[in-house]
Amino acid sequence: MMRKARISDPFWTPYERLVRETVIPYQWEMLNDRVPGAEPSHCMKNFRIAAGLEEGNFGGFVFQDSDLAKWLEAVGHSLASHPDPELERIADEAIDLALQAQWDDGYLNTYFSIEAPEKRWTNLTDCHELYCAGHMIEAAVAYYEATGKRKLLDAMCRFADYIDSVFGTEPGKIRGYDGHQEIELALVKLYNTTGNERYLKLSQYFIDERGREPKFFEQEWEARGQTSFWNGGAKAAKPHHEYHQSHLPVREQTKAVGHAVRAVYMYTAMADLARLTGDTGLLEACRKLWDNMTTKQMYITGGIGSTHHGEAFTFDYDLPNDTVYAETCASIGLIFFAQRMLQLEADSKYADVIERALHNLVLAGMSKDGHNYFYVNPLEVWPEASAQNPGKHHVKPARPKWYGCACCPPNIARLISSLGDYIYTADEKTKTVYAHLFIGSEFTLHLGDVPVTLQQQSSLPWEGNVKLQVSPKTATRFTLALRIPSWCADRPRLLVNGAETDYSNAEKGGYAHIDREWSEGDVVEWQLPLRAEWIVAHPEIRANAGKAAIQYGPLVYCLEETDNGKPLASLSFGPDSTLHARFDPGLLGGVVVIETEGRKADENGWSGENPYLPAGIIQAASRVKARAVPYFLWGNRESGEMSVWLRFQA
Amino acid sequence: MMRKARISDPFWTPYERLVRETVIPYQWEMLNDRVPGAEPSHCMKNFRIAAGLEEGNFGGFVFQDSDLAKWLEAVGHSLASHPDPELERIADEAIDLALQAQWDDGYLNTYFSIEAPEKRWTNLTDCHELYCAGHMIEAAVAYYEATGKRKLLDAMCRFADYIDSVFGTEPGKIRGYDGHQEIELALVKLYNTTGNERYLKLSQYFIDERGREPKFFEQEWEARGQTSFWNGGAKAAKPHHEYHQSHLPVREQTKAVGHAVRAVYMYTAMADLARLTGDTGLLEACRKLWDNMTTKQMYITGGIGSTHHGEAFTFDYDLPNDTVYAETCASIGLIFFAQRMLQLEADSKYADVIERALHNLVLAGMSKDGHNYFYVNPLEVWPEASAQNPGKHHVKPARPKWYGCACCPPNIARLISSLGDYIYTADEKTKTVYAHLFIGSEFTLHLGDVPVTLQQQSSLPWEGNVKLQVSPKTATRFTLALRIPSWCADRPRLLVNGAETDYSNAEKGGYAHIDREWSEGDVVEWQLPLRAEWIVAHPEIRANAGKAAIQYGPLVYCLEETDNGKPLASLSFGPDSTLHARFDPGLLGGVVVIETEGRKADENGWSGENPYLPAGIIQAASRVKARAVPYFLWGNRESGEMSVWLRFQA
Repeated sequence: MMRKARISDPFWTPYERLVRETVIPYQWEMLNDRVPGAEPSHCMKNFRIAAGLEEGNFGGFVFQDSDLAKWLEAVGHSLASHPDPELERIADEAIDLALQAQWDDGYLNTYFSIEAPEKRWTNLTDCHELYCAGHMIEAAVAYYEATGKRKLLDAMCRFADYIDSVFGTEPGKIRGYDGHQEIELALVKLYNTTGNERYLKLSQYFIDERGREPKFFEQEWEARGQTSFWNGGAKAAKPHHEYHQSHLPVREQTKAVGHAVRAVYMYTAMADLARLTGDTGLLEACRKLWDNMTTKQMYITGGIGSTHHGEAFTFDYDLPNDTVYAETCASIGLIFFAQRMLQLEADSKYADVIERALHNLVLAGMSKDGHNYFYVNPLEVWPEASAQNPGKHHVKPARPKWYGCACCPPNIARLISSLGDYIYTADEKTKTVYAHLFIGSEFTLHLGDVPVTLQQQSSLPWEGNVKLQVSPKTATRFTLALRIPSWCADRPRLLVNGAETDYSNAEKGGYAHIDREWSEGDVVEWQLPLRAEWIVAHPEIRANAGKAAIQYGPLVYCLEETDNGKPLASLSFGPDSTLHARFDPGLLGGVVVIETEGRKADENGWSGENPYLPAGIIQAASRVKARAVPYFLWGNRESGEMSVWLRFQA
Repeated sequence: MMRKARISDPFWTPYERLVRETVIPYQWEMLNDRVPGAEPSHCMKNFRIAAGLEEGNFGGFVFQDSDLAKWLEAVGHSLASHPDPELERIADEAIDLALQAQWDDGYLNTYFSIEAPEKRWTNLTDCHELYCAGHMIEAAVAYYEATGKRKLLDAMCRFADYIDSVFGTEPGKIRGYDGHQEIELALVKLYNTTGNERYLKLSQYFIDERGREPKFFEQEWEARGQTSFWNGGAKAAKPHHEYHQSHLPVREQTKAVGHAVRAVYMYTAMADLARLTGDTGLLEACRKLWDNMTTKQMYITGGIGSTHHGEAFTFDYDLPNDTVYAETCASIGLIFFAQRMLQLEADSKYADVIERALHNLVLAGMSKDGHNYFYVNPLEVWPEASAQNPGKHHVKPARPKWYGCACCPPNIARLISSLGDYIYTADEKTKTVYAHLFIGSEFTLHLGDVPVTLQQQSSLPWEGNVKLQVSPKTATRFTLALRIPSWCADRPRLLVNGAETDYSNAEKGGYAHIDREWSEGDVVEWQLPLRAEWIVAHPEIRANAGKAAIQYGPLVYCLEETDNGKPLASLSFGPDSTLHARFDPGLLGGVVVIETEGRKADENGWSGENPYLPAGIIQAASRVKARAVPYFLWGNRESGEMSVWLRFQA
């Protein structure tokens, strides 16, 4: 088998290598509890216990199995582009071990196997059984597509068949769905790989059933004596439906609510099903949810989830920068959803969000060395407040080591190692190949019978030169559609085989369409004008009133205390604060820094006696230089204050 | 007996009347569970059950007895200035009933009497036994001083004697102190009224013992099996010492920490003891705690407590406006502390804080009709966020009715009905009478043998004319010291018997000292220049960076949505936003409103598609008029956004 796109890019290749050489091996050590000083994962130990190879109790979160699954998926993606026999051997062994814990009927879950085999499927609300199944299915698909090895895939087909025999509307089946969506999108992948429609229909069942009356989670809660798994089995309040997006049938949902990761995983499956089944009701719901989420509930970094209470969405325009959640996993799920929407309809707004979330939020989730991770990605940090104000305890001023709940690190690994899947889509009907992301890579697709290879070079994000070599096996007519990024202040220049080409009459949905007969060796140049700009937020976003952020191409910037002193809030900027972009090869491995001038409120004149004084007696702010660095690299130097949104008087 | 000062003031008399005619009767109905639609208090019912007059279980919070105590104290203060035989009869009956629940040894607490008599004094950390005792002692003192009736006073002396037999350093005694400070300041009052030094020493013991090693709360927690009262007696973490201000011996404390009400009640007793015992270590600690609290942890409204987690202080300069706690009771306690500091040393900074907290935060705590109360007093409200962002659920956009925990309403009642105690202090040694607050009133004190009557008239807070008629029984020399409020932009004018008087060489500690021989009928005029001003906050207070508030004399102002539309954050002001004060007789019962002009960010140009756009393409803000109303009256019209701190470009 061959991966569709292979990354070769000065910016992304080091990340891919970091994941391959550092993150994947490190995570394997983590899964095996071999990292000194880190909280034990218990993950592989659970599998050994469930397989009967070891004695002991289950350890970690009830969904700990998913850590192995996400790791195996990342390994699959990595092996697809970079074969590695030793890594493959380790993965094979892990699969062998994991499958020893599989039941004869196909069931696989170490928590229930070890602790409560009789309680299978009695608490879908809390216990993530189908969620873990979903992740293992995703792993099986990725591993099979990379290696051609069917062992895990076949095992997961057996598991999916078994799940299909348990859940559904037919008499005798449980008419339920999982508290944490994931199985839905995984079953679509299993269908794509196996062609077995049973999996597509099962996914459809879970999506269709969700939120219907009577509410399954309430029935289940009554049936188990109104208890919750999370408070040790004591009596608990009714399940909170919005948290699980089970408050309404999915087609009636118009606003993003509840736990952000659950939400975007569900929307991803909805978009998959809309595409595969032609369900226009689902498509309409996807569009509404997309628009609500990305135009009213998304941070400039591509972060989603405004509160740590339930790691959840709150409501339109409520985007506090300092009490934010913006979990790394949520933005990864947002990217999944955007990718599926691009498969449905070529609108550059989806790709814009992929680029925004990927370059800013997701990369910020990991330290430069791949050993430390943010789960929460704040846009404003005051380290003393994180330590001393309980409402900000969840906002960490420095990336912690692997958490007990290790959802985000393996999620970053699987996304970066599958980045090739996000660059292009093709519409066979209109014979159009869309280039969504500008990442150096090689990609081969078939238009009709003709294989077409696209070799892309890109100097993003620091410079805007993109070059595509288009090589059809035989000369053939088709449309190459290049995304016009929303951050382009001026129109990109297009050159086809060196000749300036006007595309003003060939713009559609945010793409420049080049419809021509292509021959081997044709070269398209796409020159994106990069410029540092002050960006303001919609006036309804109260948290950003009177503020602006710095953006340079796809990158959001921030000020850090180590460059600018503190308090950062005492700095202010205005239209005369011209932004100067300069590549600094010595900083953070080489980055474009943005330099400007602002004013800093003077603390002279404040005696310390009275913290509130008439505006007139305070000395004028003095001019100071300021330096912004890419947000995705914040927190890789000395810990201190950080702020994306800066005081700005228009 | 006669009250020392009797209020007669166009601004304050209506409040005093509201408390007397509305709040006290309404609260009595509340205590008796007779307010339709309100959560039952259970308070009087608990006393009936504990007295054996009724069957049933204890209801309400473990400290519910204190509601009756605070009500009786308010009644005492009110009767002192406004005799009311019917109210006195009701109070007498309430006292008779309450004392039927007193044990033979003096103990009085309905929770333990009803639910767990054998558990007396086993959980001081959580159960408020001494706190409730303290409030009943305060009630006894106030009621005795108003009516001369000794029944409750004698009963509380018996209770205090019993407490003294239980607690102390002597062998066999419990070496403990209460989880919620209050008994300490109450015992000082009992000492002042009875002259019995035993009570002073007992107060001193509680203060001295607090925070010593080994930590009493930990020993107690171990002894009861590491449980907490608050989670139904289940295992719980160790007591959190900072919350209870038991982290250090009180003399070593330099920063205000933990639960704000507990803190200021303790500081009040510390200041009392410093004055009565001459303990300079205590005085020094009081000064440090005062300075930390009022210069680094106090809101412009006089609110304290930056987080609802533990209703607590956080750390220096952390004063978020929208997630604030700023409990009404905490500012009342702050006023107690300030009053005691004024008795120790005449520094106008203490009186400034009394005035600030009283006129802004405390009055804001109550609706104009006296029926609804804020516990949390935010400086910024976005009603949708209060409803939909869990981190702001504690911030209410409208005053709720009486809560289950009714600490604040009776606390407001007892403060307003004893306001006369805060206007003056006298220093017998230097023969100086200090006028701290400018409130129309009549007050008689003795300087040596000479009774001196001070009749004050004041047009504050709307105008700044203060007139004092000084009437010594016989002509006598002493100093009258008039506070120069910190909000005076220009120097106040002083006229003595109509003659302009220069006091520039007679200023001390923020007071103008008038040292002369006074005769009957001497008149002092003190003309305070009132001016609306933009006030900025110390640059370390990040929440207020780039913002200013409007102050007019002692009053802090705010913008409400009902006057200014929304979002309020889209309004901005600058040095050209001249403030115009105008008395509006039709608004909110007649108030000075402040009018100005600012700019409002335009929502035109925002398509709704992209919430983040380059600053350059956004239309300039348009000029708009804005109207500010006194903060203490916010939330008395239509519910909506409110903000004290407004965007302001210096």
